[in-house]
Amino acid sequence: MVQDSHPSTEPRELLAEYRASIDNIDAALIHMLAERFRCTKAVGVLKANYGLPPADPSREQAQITRLRRLADDAHLDPDFAEKFLNFIVREVIRHHEAIAASGGVVTDLHAAKAGKSNSTASSGE
Amino acid sequence: MVQDSHPSTEPRELLAEYRASIDNIDAALIHMLAERFRCTKAVGVLKANYGLPPADPSREQAQITRLRRLADDAHLDPDFAEKFLNFIVREVIRHHEAIAASGGVVTDLHAAKAGKSNSTASSGE
Repeated sequence: MVQDSHPSTEPRELLAEYRASIDNIDAALIHMLAERFRCTKAVGVLKANYGLPPADPSREQAQITRLRRLADDAHLDPDFAEKFLNFIVREVIRHHEAIAASGGVVTDLHAAKAGKSNSTASSGE
Repeated sequence: MVQDSHPSTEPRELLAEYRASIDNIDAALIHMLAERFRCTKAVGVLKANYGLPPADPSREQAQITRLRRLADDAHLDPDFAEKFLNFIVREVIRHHEAIAASGGVVTDLHAAKAGKSNSTASSGE
């Protein structure tokens, strides 16, 4: 993050500096999310193909506990971190439903968007 | 992301590999989010201290357009990227309300959590 090391900096210049940092961070977030969904789609295919159980409550609880601790260390609200994980998990479940509906094959992201809304139990990892 | 370059790999071993990638990505996401909120809290303080307008619709539209393009390039659903930005923005607005209520000073994240729920117009950058 930029620091106001020059007290004479105009507020609007400083605002532009912060916005440049925010834009860089957003690009990183988008690419991290894209990679995360590549992983979870692969997990969905793997589980569908090998008949592995879709949900794993102990894994999910471990993820929540770990993310809350990481958030606390980074001075991020742990409640927000848990809300964020739940937000991502809802999207993952949508993808897994699409994978299950297609018989374990997803060729592109549009296939995942065609998923049914009536869910079976599914992990959001 | 791990690749199934060894067809003999047991499904559960492969699942563990994917989960290791997901955990690393989640740690990166949490830290990126923490840094993003450091920036947006600084923006909130700056705007409160210098009387800059809280909302900037042209900036917000540019952010949406850019994130959708970045998502498309990364094979991430652009609709999801926009939903993600809106999710973050709701949290930022909550922080900005807390900053405004405290007169432009936020000393820690718990101060931000004490924000009032009745919002004035606020940018979510």
